Amino acid sequence: MNDVKKYIDENKDRFLNELFELIRIPSVSSKDSNKDDMYKAADWIKNKLLADGAGHAEVMETEGHPVVYGEKILDPLWPTVLVYGHYDVQPAEPFDLWDSPPFEPEVRNGKIYARGANDDKGQMYMHFKAFEYLLKTNQLTCNVKFMIEGEEEIGSPSLGKFCDENKEKLKADVILVSDTSMLGPKIPSITTGLRGLAYMEVEVTGPSHDLHSGLYGGAVDNPVNVLCDMISSLRDDKNKINIPGFYDDVEELSKEEREEMARAPFDMEEFKRHIDIAEVNGEEGYSTMERTGIRPSLDVNGIWGGYTEKGAKTILPSKAYAKISMRLVPHQESKKIEQLFKKHFEAIAPKSVKVKVEFLHGGEGYVSPTNTVAYQAASKAYETTYGIKPIPVRSGGSIPIISLFEKILGTKSILMGFGLDSDAIHSPNENYALEQFYKGIETIPWFYKYFTEMSR
Amino acid sequence: MNDVKKYIDENKDRFLNELFELIRIPSVSSKDSNKDDMYKAADWIKNKLLADGAGHAEVMETEGHPVVYGEKILDPLWPTVLVYGHYDVQPAEPFDLWDSPPFEPEVRNGKIYARGANDDKGQMYMHFKAFEYLLKTNQLTCNVKFMIEGEEEIGSPSLGKFCDENKEKLKADVILVSDTSMLGPKIPSITTGLRGLAYMEVEVTGPSHDLHSGLYGGAVDNPVNVLCDMISSLRDDKNKINIPGFYDDVEELSKEEREEMARAPFDMEEFKRHIDIAEVNGEEGYSTMERTGIRPSLDVNGIWGGYTEKGAKTILPSKAYAKISMRLVPHQESKKIEQLFKKHFEAIAPKSVKVKVEFLHGGEGYVSPTNTVAYQAASKAYETTYGIKPIPVRSGGSIPIISLFEKILGTKSILMGFGLDSDAIHSPNENYALEQFYKGIETIPWFYKYFTEMSR
Repeated sequence: MNDVKKYIDENKDRFLNELFELIRIPSVSSKDSNKDDMYKAADWIKNKLLADGAGHAEVMETEGHPVVYGEKILDPLWPTVLVYGHYDVQPAEPFDLWDSPPFEPEVRNGKIYARGANDDKGQMYMHFKAFEYLLKTNQLTCNVKFMIEGEEEIGSPSLGKFCDENKEKLKADVILVSDTSMLGPKIPSITTGLRGLAYMEVEVTGPSHDLHSGLYGGAVDNPVNVLCDMISSLRDDKNKINIPGFYDDVEELSKEEREEMARAPFDMEEFKRHIDIAEVNGEEGYSTMERTGIRPSLDVNGIWGGYTEKGAKTILPSKAYAKISMRLVPHQESKKIEQLFKKHFEAIAPKSVKVKVEFLHGGEGYVSPTNTVAYQAASKAYETTYGIKPIPVRSGGSIPIISLFEKILGTKSILMGFGLDSDAIHSPNENYALEQFYKGIETIPWFYKYFTEMSR
Repeated sequence: MNDVKKYIDENKDRFLNELFELIRIPSVSSKDSNKDDMYKAADWIKNKLLADGAGHAEVMETEGHPVVYGEKILDPLWPTVLVYGHYDVQPAEPFDLWDSPPFEPEVRNGKIYARGANDDKGQMYMHFKAFEYLLKTNQLTCNVKFMIEGEEEIGSPSLGKFCDENKEKLKADVILVSDTSMLGPKIPSITTGLRGLAYMEVEVTGPSHDLHSGLYGGAVDNPVNVLCDMISSLRDDKNKINIPGFYDDVEELSKEEREEMARAPFDMEEFKRHIDIAEVNGEEGYSTMERTGIRPSLDVNGIWGGYTEKGAKTILPSKAYAKISMRLVPHQESKKIEQLFKKHFEAIAPKSVKVKVEFLHGGEGYVSPTNTVAYQAASKAYETTYGIKPIPVRSGGSIPIISLFEKILGTKSILMGFGLDSDAIHSPNENYALEQFYKGIETIPWFYKYFTEMSR
């Protein structure tokens, strides 16, 4: 298998051009206007799986966007790896902050710039090319299945039912996922924890119509001011989330566990410089890594109300809105947090306004043990191509479906991410380093090899 | 002058059609895209003044939108009344809340529905038709001047300089303005106080770009959450404005004055029902009328930041914005409040964000004494046409230019408003009752008559 580098080198331009074809399809799952693009992307993936050597591939309908399934079964007695990825992407807005159009991929300074360059088209496509290599060179020693969905960025609402209805088809020894990041370009890491998510939208209505702020201001509660008061009250002066019951299921890690975590390299100055802030801030008593790794958080993802165009309009608005999401840690249940949030938000609203609280999407956190065959195989694969042992880390992000897989399919996942924190996923100018893309294609075949060997 | 009702009756359809022509010109002063419409409206007004009998009229350039000046000088020794009005209107957004298009006036249930139906095209045009009547019937006993501006809704930024450069031309014994409202359709009132205004726009910047809320949430301050905290802290739990020095120049009214004010009719249930709120709220220790009449207020007129479209985008936004305005009472200076606000807002910002504070526009409050010839003449005019003496009231709104007139021209203003609080000015479905429109045309000539008699 030492020819993998040579194979990549001989085919690297083709690999990139194929990925660019997929990126050019604007498969934004949250927008109704992109519905046709979801099918276009799904068909493209099905055809590519067949071209790369899958014995069977199909686009499967769900209640939402379709799932692409593909498989190469060499011997039913061999171990089976199920590759999970997603072809949908986040919206690209605000467009004017992109240096090049989000759906026209461009390579600058050794990086691919585009929506989906990393998350997850770029990372997912590494698996297709590693698969192609193993088949073309007759080195695949296990069975491989693919499940590529189109609703990850909206919380995978249809995938639970899909898994439930296709348990036999999806049967595997491990689920392999590349949708996370490494600590640095030379510091491989394996994500062993993920946060859950509860994403809410709130609407606050004051008067039935916009009022003249002179004639009414001071005598009638303004829903924007009220919403600001309510949002502000959701966190206390120690940055703890101020919702009764919110921390009930949060696991307090032991001193030893926190010390072990603290060994991961972290450069505070570099962290602040990269996002251009003068000071970090978060829950009292926890480090920056802990605040995103083992503690829940609450963020306003968007807010709007009243007059937001150029100039001055002197109104007391009728309505104000916000999208508020909470990242959860393992054991916190998304549905329970949703209920606690709704109850609390309605309770703190003054009588002068009406409040609506809607649950947009959510999912559970996940903890992956390090003593499994899959973890050991992934660790050895990274060590083979990077020369150092990867560090286990807990990530602040959420891939809600990972905990669902365990619940429904009874299968553990292994998160071999090749992204970098500087890739600006979900942001303008999302990018993915060519080096990471190719290193991923190089590392994945070793995982198959070691996983097969260790499973026997 | 008892033929005025007959004259109105014979010409009422023409009056309305003329007003509709003006309303159809979308003269929104805050939008660059409506620049041509400002000149179109100004020209229309100039031509109408000439047609109605002005001896001279002209469109005069300013640094912003033009002012229309017109005059009828019958005898330099006679008293002179300067009519002030404005041809610009507020933006009509949100368009989808209008029952009929804002710039296509429509009469329904005895009311004109359109942007500017009342504020100020409808109220201003009453003066044109009263002027026409007095000239056509040879009953004008004083000189009349008109100054109709195009920047009232954006704070009249050019009018101060205009007045300063045209002091001789604008010389008058009183300035007559219809840009306020009456207490009810049968309850005439004269506005004797107006609030000032300081209108700010703030920008809060956190990280240099939108971040993934999972990877960063909890460890990095979110500018939307920070903005909510800051806005929330601007008022204390008694709804007092929490800016150091803010109340320094606020005049505390005597018990007697407050008792006199409390005599104005006010129906709390009707007030709440009209705007569909369950409860009023405002500064502790003051009534609803006092909260808008004699106390300052602070309102968020608009707020925006992060992802505001359909669905869920899991970002920690880079920026958050708000338009925040304060209504001021007489003696509070707009410029001083602007400085206090800016200093305070910058001071309370945490180090994790950068803050920009911009002053959009403002103006001073105004108090008009009731013992002047103009007040007595206006009072008698209303009494003649409505059968009851008007009530002096302090309005919560602002016409910043009124205090500037006194400062620059040395001339007092008299505010004869014919609007109603239910007219939804600045809101969707702005309207103006035909009865108020015609009653205004009927009442104004009596003011000229009494003012001339009392001035001699």
